[in-house]
Amino acid sequence: MNHWDRVAIVGVGLIGGSLGWDLLRRGLAREVVGIGRRSEPLGVALERGLITRTAATIAEGVAGADLIVVCTPVDRIAQCVLEAAAECPGNCLITDAGSTKAALVAQLDEQLPPAARFVGSHPLAGSHHSGPQAAVSDLFVGRTVVVTPTARTRPADAEAICGLWQSLDARVVRLSPEEHDRLVAYSSHLPHLAASALAAATPKAARHLVAGGWLDTTRIAAADSALWTQIFLSNRGHALTALAGYEKLLRSLRRALQRSDADTIEKILTKARRTRDAVGS
Amino acid sequence: MNHWDRVAIVGVGLIGGSLGWDLLRRGLAREVVGIGRRSEPLGVALERGLITRTAATIAEGVAGADLIVVCTPVDRIAQCVLEAAAECPGNCLITDAGSTKAALVAQLDEQLPPAARFVGSHPLAGSHHSGPQAAVSDLFVGRTVVVTPTARTRPADAEAICGLWQSLDARVVRLSPEEHDRLVAYSSHLPHLAASALAAATPKAARHLVAGGWLDTTRIAAADSALWTQIFLSNRGHALTALAGYEKLLRSLRRALQRSDADTIEKILTKARRTRDAVGS
Repeated sequence: MNHWDRVAIVGVGLIGGSLGWDLLRRGLAREVVGIGRRSEPLGVALERGLITRTAATIAEGVAGADLIVVCTPVDRIAQCVLEAAAECPGNCLITDAGSTKAALVAQLDEQLPPAARFVGSHPLAGSHHSGPQAAVSDLFVGRTVVVTPTARTRPADAEAICGLWQSLDARVVRLSPEEHDRLVAYSSHLPHLAASALAAATPKAARHLVAGGWLDTTRIAAADSALWTQIFLSNRGHALTALAGYEKLLRSLRRALQRSDADTIEKILTKARRTRDAVGS
Repeated sequence: MNHWDRVAIVGVGLIGGSLGWDLLRRGLAREVVGIGRRSEPLGVALERGLITRTAATIAEGVAGADLIVVCTPVDRIAQCVLEAAAECPGNCLITDAGSTKAALVAQLDEQLPPAARFVGSHPLAGSHHSGPQAAVSDLFVGRTVVVTPTARTRPADAEAICGLWQSLDARVVRLSPEEHDRLVAYSSHLPHLAASALAAATPKAARHLVAGGWLDTTRIAAADSALWTQIFLSNRGHALTALAGYEKLLRSLRRALQRSDADTIEKILTKARRTRDAVGS
Protein backbone atom coordinates (compact mmCIF):
# COMPACT_ATOMS: atom_id res chain seq x y z
CA MET A 1 0.00 0.00 0.00
CA ASN A 2 1.23 3.49 -0.92
CA HIS A 3 4.09 1.96 -2.82
CA TRP A 4 4.02 2.46 -6.54
CA ASP A 5 5.97 0.58 -9.16
CA ARG A 6 5.79 3.14 -11.96
CA VAL A 7 4.38 6.64 -11.52
CA ALA A 8 3.79 8.78 -14.61
CA ILE A 9 3.76 12.55 -14.02
CA VAL A 10 2.40 14.75 -16.80
CA GLY A 11 4.00 18.19 -16.39
CA VAL A 12 7.17 18.31 -14.29
CA GLY A 13 7.01 21.87 -12.93
CA LEU A 14 7.12 22.95 -9.29
CA ILE A 15 4.35 20.55 -8.22
CA GLY A 16 5.01 17.63 -10.57
CA GLY A 17 8.78 17.81 -10.11
CA SER A 18 8.59 18.02 -6.32
CA LEU A 19 6.13 15.13 -6.26
CA GLY A 20 8.40 12.89 -8.34
CA TRP A 21 11.39 13.75 -6.21
CA ASP A 22 9.62 13.00 -2.92
CA LEU A 23 8.21 9.68 -4.18
CA LEU A 24 11.71 8.60 -5.20
CA ARG A 25 13.55 9.98 -2.15
CA ARG A 26 11.10 8.32 0.22
CA GLY A 27 11.26 5.03 -1.63
CA LEU A 28 7.53 5.23 -2.43
CA ALA A 29 8.00 4.72 -6.17
CA ARG A 30 10.45 2.49 -8.00
CA GLU A 31 10.27 4.57 -11.18
CA VAL A 32 8.94 8.03 -12.10
CA VAL A 33 8.31 8.85 -15.76
CA GLY A 34 8.17 12.58 -16.55
CA ILE A 35 5.90 13.41 -19.49
CA GLY A 36 6.02 16.73 -21.31
CA ARG A 37 5.83 18.34 -24.71
CA ARG A 38 8.99 20.38 -24.28
CA SER A 39 12.29 18.58 -23.81
CA GLU A 40 14.06 21.32 -21.85
CA PRO A 41 12.12 21.15 -18.57
CA LEU A 42 12.16 17.34 -18.81
CA GLY A 43 15.95 17.49 -19.12
CA VAL A 44 16.20 19.71 -16.02
CA ALA A 45 13.92 17.35 -14.07
CA LEU A 46 15.95 14.31 -15.13
CA GLU A 47 19.25 15.96 -14.31
CA ARG A 48 17.98 17.04 -10.87
CA GLY A 49 16.77 13.47 -10.18
CA LEU A 50 13.12 14.50 -9.87
CA ILE A 51 12.20 11.73 -12.34
CA THR A 52 13.96 8.59 -13.58
CA ARG A 53 12.87 8.68 -17.23
CA THR A 54 11.24 11.02 -19.75
CA ALA A 55 8.53 10.57 -22.35
CA ALA A 56 7.39 13.02 -25.03
CA THR A 57 3.84 11.68 -25.30
CA ILE A 58 1.23 10.52 -22.83
CA ALA A 59 0.73 7.25 -24.72
CA GLU A 60 4.40 6.40 -24.34
CA GLY A 61 4.75 7.66 -20.76
CA VAL A 62 1.78 5.94 -19.13
CA ALA A 63 2.57 2.44 -20.45
CA GLY A 64 2.87 0.11 -17.47
CA ALA A 65 2.07 2.85 -14.91
CA ASP A 66 0.09 2.11 -11.76
CA LEU A 67 -0.34 5.82 -10.90
CA ILE A 68 -0.67 8.87 -13.15
CA VAL A 69 -0.61 12.42 -11.76
CA VAL A 70 -1.51 15.22 -14.17
CA CYS A 71 0.27 18.42 -13.06
CA THR A 72 -0.24 20.59 -16.15
CA PRO A 73 -1.81 24.07 -16.20
CA VAL A 74 -5.49 23.83 -15.34
CA ASP A 75 -6.81 24.35 -18.89
CA ARG A 76 -4.96 21.25 -20.17
CA ILE A 77 -5.77 18.79 -17.37
CA ALA A 78 -9.03 17.31 -18.75
CA GLN A 79 -7.52 16.48 -22.12
CA CYS A 80 -4.44 14.92 -20.50
CA VAL A 81 -6.51 12.77 -18.14
CA LEU A 82 -8.71 11.57 -21.03
CA GLU A 83 -5.66 10.67 -23.09
CA ALA A 84 -3.95 9.00 -20.16
CA ALA A 85 -7.06 6.96 -19.30
CA ALA A 86 -7.27 5.73 -22.89
CA GLU A 87 -3.68 4.49 -22.87
CA CYS A 88 -2.88 3.31 -19.34
CA PRO A 89 -3.25 -0.18 -17.84
CA GLY A 90 -6.76 -0.98 -16.54
CA ASN A 91 -5.78 -0.98 -12.88
CA CYS A 92 -4.00 2.37 -13.04
CA LEU A 93 -5.12 5.18 -10.70
CA ILE A 94 -5.22 8.74 -12.05
CA THR A 95 -5.25 12.02 -10.16
CA ASP A 96 -4.31 15.64 -10.90
CA ALA A 97 -3.03 18.73 -9.12
CA GLY A 98 -5.37 21.34 -10.61
CA SER A 99 -6.32 24.52 -8.74
CA THR A 100 -10.01 24.25 -9.62
CA LYS A 101 -12.11 21.11 -9.58
CA ALA A 102 -15.85 21.41 -10.35
CA ALA A 103 -15.79 21.89 -14.14
CA LEU A 104 -12.89 19.47 -14.56
CA VAL A 105 -14.37 16.68 -12.45
CA ALA A 106 -17.81 17.09 -14.06
CA GLN A 107 -16.30 16.84 -17.54
CA LEU A 108 -14.28 13.77 -16.58
CA ASP A 109 -17.24 12.09 -14.85
CA GLU A 110 -19.06 12.48 -18.14
CA GLN A 111 -16.33 11.64 -20.64
CA LEU A 112 -14.13 9.05 -18.93
CA PRO A 113 -14.91 5.39 -19.64
CA PRO A 114 -16.74 3.80 -16.67
CA ALA A 115 -13.75 1.64 -15.77
CA ALA A 116 -11.35 4.61 -15.46
CA ARG A 117 -10.15 5.27 -11.91
CA PHE A 118 -9.81 9.07 -11.59
CA VAL A 119 -9.95 11.05 -8.32
CA GLY A 120 -9.30 14.82 -8.29
CA SER A 121 -6.66 16.40 -6.04
CA HIS A 122 -5.47 19.91 -5.30
CA PRO A 123 -2.25 20.25 -3.29
CA LEU A 124 -2.20 23.79 -1.83
CA ALA A 125 1.54 24.02 -2.29
CA GLY A 126 2.06 26.43 -5.19
CA SER A 127 4.13 29.57 -5.00
CA HIS A 128 5.16 32.41 -7.29
CA HIS A 129 7.99 30.21 -8.55
CA SER A 130 7.47 27.66 -11.32
CA GLY A 131 9.23 25.05 -13.41
CA PRO A 132 11.32 21.98 -12.45
CA GLN A 133 14.16 24.26 -11.26
CA ALA A 134 11.76 25.46 -8.52
CA ALA A 135 10.97 21.91 -7.30
CA VAL A 136 11.91 21.31 -3.65
CA SER A 137 12.00 18.23 -1.47
CA ASP A 138 9.32 17.81 1.19
CA LEU A 139 7.13 20.39 -0.57
CA PHE A 140 3.94 18.73 0.70
CA VAL A 141 4.95 18.25 4.34
CA GLY A 142 2.30 19.92 6.51
CA ARG A 143 0.54 21.35 3.44
CA THR A 144 -3.15 20.89 2.81
CA VAL A 145 -4.20 18.69 -0.10
CA VAL A 146 -7.88 18.69 -1.05
CA VAL A 147 -9.15 15.42 -2.54
CA THR A 148 -12.51 15.68 -4.33
CA PRO A 149 -14.26 12.32 -4.79
CA THR A 150 -17.71 12.26 -6.42
CA ALA A 151 -20.64 9.83 -6.44
CA ARG A 152 -18.86 8.05 -9.27
CA THR A 153 -15.61 7.50 -7.31
CA ARG A 154 -14.91 4.04 -5.89
CA PRO A 155 -14.21 4.45 -2.14
CA ALA A 156 -11.00 2.39 -2.41
CA ASP A 157 -9.68 4.74 -5.11
CA ALA A 158 -10.41 7.83 -3.00
CA GLU A 159 -8.62 6.11 -0.10
CA ALA A 160 -5.60 5.35 -2.27
CA ILE A 161 -5.29 8.95 -3.51
CA CYS A 162 -5.68 10.29 0.05
CA GLY A 163 -2.98 7.78 1.03
CA LEU A 164 -0.66 9.07 -1.72
CA TRP A 165 -0.64 12.60 -0.26
CA GLN A 166 -0.57 11.35 3.33
CA SER A 167 2.52 9.32 2.53
CA LEU A 168 4.18 12.67 1.70
CA ASP A 169 3.05 14.02 5.12
CA ALA A 170 0.39 16.32 3.71
CA ARG A 171 -2.83 17.11 5.58
CA VAL A 172 -5.65 15.69 3.45
CA VAL A 173 -9.11 17.32 3.36
CA ARG A 174 -11.99 15.72 1.43
CA LEU A 175 -14.43 18.14 -0.17
CA SER A 176 -16.92 18.03 -2.99
CA PRO A 177 -15.51 19.67 -6.15
CA GLU A 178 -18.09 22.47 -5.82
CA GLU A 179 -17.29 23.23 -2.18
CA HIS A 180 -13.58 23.18 -3.01
CA ASP A 181 -14.03 25.76 -5.75
CA ARG A 182 -16.24 28.00 -3.61
CA LEU A 183 -13.66 28.09 -0.79
CA VAL A 184 -10.43 28.43 -2.82
CA ALA A 185 -11.99 31.47 -4.50
CA TYR A 186 -11.42 33.16 -1.11
CA SER A 187 -8.32 31.37 0.13
CA SER A 188 -6.32 31.41 -3.10
CA HIS A 189 -7.86 33.19 -6.10
CA LEU A 190 -8.93 36.41 -4.36
CA PRO A 191 -5.46 36.88 -2.76
CA HIS A 192 -3.92 36.57 -6.22
CA LEU A 193 -6.31 39.14 -7.69
CA ALA A 194 -5.76 41.50 -4.72
CA ALA A 195 -1.96 41.17 -4.82
CA SER A 196 -1.77 41.63 -8.59
CA ALA A 197 -4.02 44.69 -8.60
CA LEU A 198 -1.90 46.15 -5.78
CA ALA A 199 1.38 45.64 -7.64
CA ALA A 200 -0.14 47.00 -10.85
CA ALA A 201 -1.50 50.06 -8.98
CA THR A 202 1.92 51.03 -7.61
CA PRO A 203 3.43 53.99 -9.51
CA LYS A 204 7.10 53.75 -10.43
CA ALA A 205 8.04 56.67 -8.13
CA ALA A 206 6.73 54.78 -5.08
CA ARG A 207 8.84 51.68 -5.72
CA HIS A 208 11.88 52.96 -3.82
CA LEU A 209 9.75 53.47 -0.70
CA VAL A 210 8.36 49.95 -0.39
CA ALA A 211 9.07 47.95 2.75
CA GLY A 212 7.97 44.67 4.32
CA GLY A 213 4.24 45.38 4.02
CA TRP A 214 4.21 45.97 0.27
CA LEU A 215 6.66 43.13 -0.33
CA ASP A 216 4.55 40.58 1.58
CA THR A 217 1.24 41.79 0.19
CA THR A 218 2.37 41.68 -3.45
CA ARG A 219 4.62 38.58 -3.34
CA ILE A 220 2.28 36.29 -5.30
CA ALA A 221 1.85 38.92 -8.01
CA ALA A 222 5.15 37.53 -9.35
CA ALA A 223 3.40 34.27 -10.29
CA ASP A 224 2.95 33.13 -13.91
CA SER A 225 0.36 35.40 -15.57
CA ALA A 226 -0.95 32.97 -18.19
CA LEU A 227 -1.31 30.15 -15.65
CA TRP A 228 -3.31 32.31 -13.25
CA THR A 229 -5.49 33.79 -15.97
CA GLN A 230 -6.64 30.25 -16.77
CA ILE A 231 -7.20 29.49 -13.07
CA PHE A 232 -9.43 32.57 -12.63
CA LEU A 233 -11.39 31.71 -15.78
CA SER A 234 -11.84 28.11 -14.62
CA ASN A 235 -13.45 29.34 -11.38
CA ARG A 236 -15.14 32.41 -12.84
CA GLY A 237 -18.41 32.34 -10.87
CA HIS A 238 -16.91 31.87 -7.42
CA ALA A 239 -13.98 34.20 -8.14
CA LEU A 240 -16.45 36.92 -9.16
CA THR A 241 -18.46 36.44 -5.95
CA ALA A 242 -15.32 36.65 -3.82
CA LEU A 243 -14.07 39.68 -5.73
CA ALA A 244 -17.41 41.47 -5.34
CA GLY A 245 -17.26 40.93 -1.55
CA TYR A 246 -13.73 42.31 -1.49
CA GLU A 247 -14.70 45.37 -3.53
CA LYS A 248 -17.60 45.99 -1.16
CA LEU A 249 -15.27 46.02 1.85
CA LEU A 250 -12.85 48.38 0.11
CA ARG A 251 -15.78 50.65 -0.72
CA SER A 252 -16.79 50.67 2.97
CA LEU A 253 -13.22 51.58 3.93
CA ARG A 254 -13.11 54.33 1.30
CA ARG A 255 -16.41 55.85 2.37
CA ALA A 256 -15.42 55.75 6.03
CA LEU A 257 -12.12 57.42 5.17
CA GLN A 258 -13.94 60.06 3.11
CA ARG A 259 -16.02 61.06 6.13
CA SER A 260 -13.10 60.57 8.60
CA ASP A 261 -15.12 57.87 10.36
CA ALA A 262 -12.45 56.33 12.59
CA ASP A 263 -14.88 53.90 14.26
CA THR A 264 -15.86 52.15 11.02
CA ILE A 265 -12.26 51.94 9.79
CA GLU A 266 -11.08 50.52 13.09
CA LYS A 267 -13.97 48.04 13.15
CA ILE A 268 -13.01 46.61 9.75
CA LEU A 269 -9.31 46.54 10.65
CA THR A 270 -10.11 44.75 13.91
CA LYS A 271 -12.19 42.13 12.10
CA ALA A 272 -9.27 41.65 9.69
CA ARG A 273 -6.73 41.37 12.51
CA ARG A 274 -8.84 38.77 14.33
CA THR A 275 -9.20 36.68 11.17
CA ARG A 276 -5.46 36.92 10.50
CA ASP A 277 -4.58 36.03 14.09
CA ALA A 278 -7.01 33.08 14.06
CA VAL A 279 -5.27 31.54 11.06
CA GLY A 280 -1.71 31.93 12.37
CA SER A 281 1.54 32.45 10.55
CA MET B 1 29.54 63.66 15.27
CA ASN B 2 26.84 60.98 15.40
CA HIS B 3 27.65 60.36 19.01
CA TRP B 4 25.03 61.42 21.49
CA ASP B 5 25.42 61.94 25.19
CA ARG B 6 21.79 61.56 26.21
CA VAL B 7 19.05 60.47 23.83
CA ALA B 8 15.41 60.75 24.95
CA ILE B 9 12.96 58.42 23.18
CA VAL B 10 9.25 59.14 23.58
CA GLY B 11 7.41 55.83 23.05
CA VAL B 12 9.51 52.69 23.41
CA GLY B 13 7.63 50.31 21.08
CA LEU B 14 9.07 48.37 18.13
CA ILE B 15 10.69 51.45 16.54
CA GLY B 16 11.63 53.41 19.66
CA GLY B 17 12.88 50.34 21.53
CA SER B 18 14.95 49.06 18.59
CA LEU B 19 16.41 52.54 18.10
CA GLY B 20 17.49 52.82 21.74
CA TRP B 21 19.00 49.37 21.68
CA ASP B 22 21.02 50.00 18.53
CA LEU B 23 22.31 53.38 19.75
CA LEU B 24 23.52 51.72 22.96
CA ARG B 25 24.87 48.53 21.38
CA ARG B 26 26.83 50.48 18.76
CA GLY B 27 28.21 52.89 21.37
CA LEU B 28 26.49 55.82 19.65
CA ALA B 29 24.74 57.04 22.79
CA ARG B 30 26.00 57.11 26.37
CA GLU B 31 22.51 57.13 27.84
CA VAL B 32 18.99 56.47 26.48
CA VAL B 33 15.99 57.73 28.45
CA GLY B 34 12.71 55.99 27.63
CA ILE B 35 9.67 58.20 28.10
CA GLY B 36 6.13 56.85 28.30
CA ARG B 37 2.83 57.25 30.08
CA ARG B 38 2.49 53.57 30.96
CA SER B 39 5.07 51.97 33.25
CA GLU B 40 4.74 48.41 31.91
CA PRO B 41 6.28 48.86 28.43
CA LEU B 42 8.97 51.08 29.97
CA GLY B 43 9.78 48.25 32.39
CA VAL B 44 10.06 45.75 29.54
CA ALA B 45 12.33 48.13 27.61
CA LEU B 46 14.55 48.72 30.65
CA GLU B 47 14.77 45.02 31.45
CA ARG B 48 15.68 44.19 27.84
CA GLY B 49 18.40 46.87 27.89
CA LEU B 50 16.74 48.92 25.10
CA ILE B 51 17.05 52.01 27.32
CA THR B 52 19.14 52.91 30.36
CA ARG B 53 16.58 54.92 32.32
CA THR B 54 12.83 55.67 32.32
CA ALA B 55 10.81 58.85 32.74
CA ALA B 56 7.05 59.22 33.13
CA THR B 57 6.84 62.72 31.67
CA ILE B 58 8.43 64.48 28.73
CA ALA B 59 9.58 67.39 30.95
CA GLU B 60 11.51 64.97 33.16
CA GLY B 61 12.80 62.77 30.34
CA VAL B 62 14.22 65.41 27.99
CA ALA B 63 16.25 67.27 30.63
CA GLY B 64 19.87 67.35 29.50
CA ALA B 65 19.13 65.52 26.21
CA ASP B 66 21.01 66.33 23.02
CA LEU B 67 18.65 64.25 20.83
CA ILE B 68 14.94 63.52 21.21
CA VAL B 69 13.15 60.98 18.99
CA VAL B 70 9.35 60.88 19.21
CA CYS B 71 8.15 57.36 18.34
CA THR B 72 4.53 57.55 19.50
CA PRO B 73 1.46 56.75 17.38
CA VAL B 74 1.10 59.36 14.64
CA ASP B 75 -1.80 61.27 16.24
CA ARG B 76 0.27 62.09 19.34
CA ILE B 77 3.55 63.14 17.72
CA ALA B 78 2.87 66.87 17.27
CA GLN B 79 1.88 67.38 20.90
CA CYS B 80 4.92 65.41 22.13
CA VAL B 81 7.34 67.39 19.94
CA LEU B 82 5.84 70.70 21.11
CA GLU B 83 6.16 69.64 24.75
CA ALA B 84 9.67 68.30 24.25
CA ALA B 85 10.79 71.52 22.49
CA ALA B 86 9.48 73.59 25.37
CA GLU B 87 11.46 71.61 27.95
CA CYS B 88 14.70 70.47 26.30
CA PRO B 89 18.07 72.24 26.21
CA GLY B 90 18.42 74.86 23.45
CA ASN B 91 20.93 72.87 21.40
CA CYS B 92 18.85 69.66 21.41
CA LEU B 93 17.86 68.10 18.06
CA ILE B 94 14.37 66.63 17.72
CA THR B 95 13.05 64.12 15.20
CA ASP B 96 10.19 61.63 15.03
CA ALA B 97 9.33 58.29 13.42
CA GLY B 98 5.83 59.04 12.18
CA SER B 99 4.30 57.32 9.15
CA THR B 100 2.90 60.55 7.66
CA LYS B 101 4.65 63.86 7.48
CA ALA B 102 2.87 66.75 5.70
CA ALA B 103 0.25 67.74 8.29
CA LEU B 104 2.64 67.10 11.18
CA VAL B 105 5.55 69.06 9.75
CA ALA B 106 3.28 71.97 8.72
CA GLN B 107 1.81 72.16 12.22
CA LEU B 108 5.26 72.08 13.81
CA ASP B 109 6.69 74.66 11.39
CA GLU B 110 3.89 76.95 12.53
CA GLN B 111 3.80 76.22 16.26
CA LEU B 112 7.40 75.47 17.27
CA PRO B 113 9.46 78.38 18.59
CA PRO B 114 11.89 79.64 15.89
CA ALA B 115 14.92 78.32 17.79
CA ALA B 116 13.60 74.72 17.96
CA ARG B 117 15.61 72.22 15.90
CA PHE B 118 13.06 69.70 14.55
CA VAL B 119 13.52 67.56 11.39
CA GLY B 120 10.92 64.92 10.44
CA SER B 121 11.88 61.26 9.85
CA HIS B 122 10.05 58.12 8.79
CA PRO B 123 11.94 54.85 9.15
CA LEU B 124 10.21 52.29 6.88
CA ALA B 125 10.84 49.53 9.39
CA GLY B 126 7.44 48.77 10.92
CA SER B 127 5.84 45.35 10.95
CA HIS B 128 2.65 43.77 12.22
CA HIS B 129 4.37 43.34 15.60
CA SER B 130 4.43 46.12 18.16
CA GLY B 131 5.64 47.01 21.64
CA PRO B 132 9.09 46.86 23.26
CA GLN B 133 8.96 43.04 23.30
CA ALA B 134 9.02 43.21 19.46
CA ALA B 135 12.15 45.39 19.36
CA VAL B 136 15.07 43.80 17.52
CA SER B 137 18.69 44.74 17.05
CA ASP B 138 19.82 46.09 13.69
CA LEU B 139 16.20 46.84 12.75
CA PHE B 140 17.28 49.72 10.51
CA VAL B 141 20.11 48.01 8.64
CA GLY B 142 19.41 48.28 4.92
CA ARG B 143 15.98 49.82 5.58
CA THR B 144 14.86 53.06 3.99
CA VAL B 145 14.45 56.09 6.24
CA VAL B 146 12.82 59.17 4.72
CA VAL B 147 13.98 62.49 6.18
CA THR B 148 11.73 65.48 5.37
CA PRO B 149 13.45 68.87 5.82
CA THR B 150 11.51 72.03 4.93
CA ALA B 151 12.46 75.61 4.05
CA ARG B 152 12.58 76.26 7.80
CA THR B 153 15.12 73.49 8.53
CA ARG B 154 18.76 74.46 9.13
CA PRO B 155 20.91 72.41 6.69
CA ALA B 156 23.20 71.26 9.52
CA ASP B 157 20.21 69.87 11.44
CA ALA B 158 18.98 67.92 8.41
CA GLU B 159 22.53 66.58 7.99
CA ALA B 160 22.66 65.49 11.62
CA ILE B 161 19.33 63.63 11.45
CA CYS B 162 20.35 61.94 8.18
CA GLY B 163 23.59 61.02 9.96
CA LEU B 164 21.67 59.50 12.88
CA TRP B 165 19.93 56.99 10.61
CA GLN B 166 23.03 56.40 8.48
CA SER B 167 24.96 55.52 11.63
CA LEU B 168 22.46 52.65 12.05
CA ASP B 169 23.17 51.57 8.44
CA ALA B 170 19.85 52.72 7.05
CA ARG B 171 19.44 54.03 3.50
CA VAL B 172 18.41 57.68 3.85
CA VAL B 173 16.13 59.35 1.28
CA ARG B 174 15.33 63.08 1.51
CA LEU B 175 11.85 64.07 0.34
CA SER B 176 9.49 66.96 0.93
CA PRO B 177 6.79 66.06 3.47
CA GLU B 178 4.16 66.28 0.70
CA GLU B 179 6.03 63.98 -1.70
CA HIS B 180 6.64 61.52 1.14
CA ASP B 181 2.94 61.35 1.94
CA ARG B 182 1.93 60.97 -1.71
CA LEU B 183 4.30 58.02 -2.23
CA VAL B 184 3.76 56.13 1.04
CA ALA B 185 0.03 56.13 0.26
CA TYR B 186 0.98 53.58 -2.42
CA SER B 187 3.97 51.84 -0.83
CA SER B 188 2.56 51.45 2.67
CA HIS B 189 -1.02 52.63 3.29
CA LEU B 190 -2.67 50.99 0.28
CA PRO B 191 -1.05 47.59 1.04
CA HIS B 192 -2.45 47.79 4.57
CA LEU B 193 -5.95 48.63 3.30
CA ALA B 194 -5.76 45.84 0.68
CA ALA B 195 -4.47 43.24 3.14
CA SER B 196 -7.03 44.15 5.81
CA ALA B 197 -9.97 44.07 3.42
CA LEU B 198 -8.74 40.69 2.16
CA ALA B 199 -8.52 39.17 5.64
CA ALA B 200 -11.91 40.65 6.56
CA ALA B 201 -13.46 39.28 3.34
CA THR B 202 -12.36 35.70 4.06
CA PRO B 203 -15.25 33.56 5.34
CA LYS B 204 -14.58 31.28 8.27
CA ALA B 205 -15.10 28.13 6.17
CA ALA B 206 -12.24 29.12 3.84
CA ARG B 207 -9.69 29.54 6.64
CA HIS B 208 -8.62 25.88 6.65
CA LEU B 209 -7.77 26.10 2.95
CA VAL B 210 -5.34 29.02 3.11
CA ALA B 211 -1.78 28.53 1.96
CA GLY B 212 1.30 30.68 1.31
CA GLY B 213 -0.50 33.15 -0.96
CA TRP B 214 -3.20 34.14 1.51
CA LEU B 215 -0.72 34.14 4.40
CA ASP B 216 1.69 36.52 2.65
CA THR B 217 -1.00 38.77 1.24
CA THR B 218 -2.79 39.25 4.59
CA ARG B 219 0.26 39.31 6.92
CA ILE B 220 0.11 43.02 7.74
CA ALA B 221 -3.60 42.79 8.50
CA ALA B 222 -2.42 41.58 11.93
CA ALA B 223 -1.06 45.06 12.70
CA ASP B 224 -2.52 47.30 15.43
CA SER B 225 -5.98 48.51 14.29
CA ALA B 226 -6.11 51.78 16.24
CA LEU B 227 -2.60 52.77 15.17
CA TRP B 228 -3.34 52.20 11.49
CA THR B 229 -6.72 53.93 11.62
CA GLN B 230 -4.88 57.08 12.73
CA ILE B 231 -2.25 56.65 10.01
CA PHE B 232 -4.92 56.42 7.28
CA LEU B 233 -6.75 59.47 8.66
CA SER B 234 -3.51 61.44 8.82
CA ASN B 235 -2.95 60.81 5.09
CA ARG B 236 -6.58 60.83 4.04
CA GLY B 237 -6.31 62.62 0.69
CA HIS B 238 -3.45 60.58 -0.73
CA ALA B 239 -4.77 57.32 0.74
CA LEU B 240 -8.13 57.96 -0.95
CA THR B 241 -6.43 58.63 -4.30
CA ALA B 242 -4.38 55.43 -4.03
CA LEU B 243 -7.44 53.42 -2.95
CA ALA B 244 -9.49 54.77 -5.88
CA GLY B 245 -6.76 53.64 -8.30
CA TYR B 246 -6.74 50.20 -6.72
CA GLU B 247 -10.53 49.89 -6.90
CA LYS B 248 -10.40 50.88 -10.57
CA LEU B 249 -7.94 48.07 -11.34
CA LEU B 250 -10.04 45.53 -9.44
CA ARG B 251 -13.09 46.70 -11.40
CA SER B 252 -11.18 46.16 -14.67
CA LEU B 253 -10.24 42.66 -13.52
CA ARG B 254 -13.85 41.92 -12.51
CA ARG B 255 -15.29 43.14 -15.81
CA ALA B 256 -12.72 41.19 -17.80
CA LEU B 257 -13.52 38.08 -15.79
CA GLN B 258 -17.27 38.65 -16.31
CA ARG B 259 -16.81 38.58 -20.09
CA SER B 260 -14.10 35.82 -19.93
CA ASP B 261 -11.63 38.26 -21.48
CA ALA B 262 -8.36 36.36 -20.96
CA ASP B 263 -6.25 38.98 -22.78
CA THR B 264 -7.17 41.84 -20.43
CA ILE B 265 -6.71 39.70 -17.32
CA GLU B 266 -3.33 38.49 -18.48
CA LYS B 267 -2.29 42.03 -19.42
CA ILE B 268 -2.99 43.31 -15.87
CA LEU B 269 -1.31 40.28 -14.28
CA THR B 270 1.74 40.77 -16.49
CA LYS B 271 2.00 44.45 -15.53
CA ALA B 272 1.76 43.37 -11.88
CA ARG B 273 4.40 40.67 -12.28
CA ARG B 274 6.83 43.08 -13.96
CA THR B 275 6.38 45.65 -11.18
CA ARG B 276 6.89 42.97 -8.52
CA ASP B 277 9.96 41.58 -10.27
CA ALA B 278 11.43 45.08 -10.70
CA VAL B 279 11.26 45.70 -6.95
CA GLY B 280 12.81 42.38 -5.90
CA SER B 281 12.28 40.27 -2.84
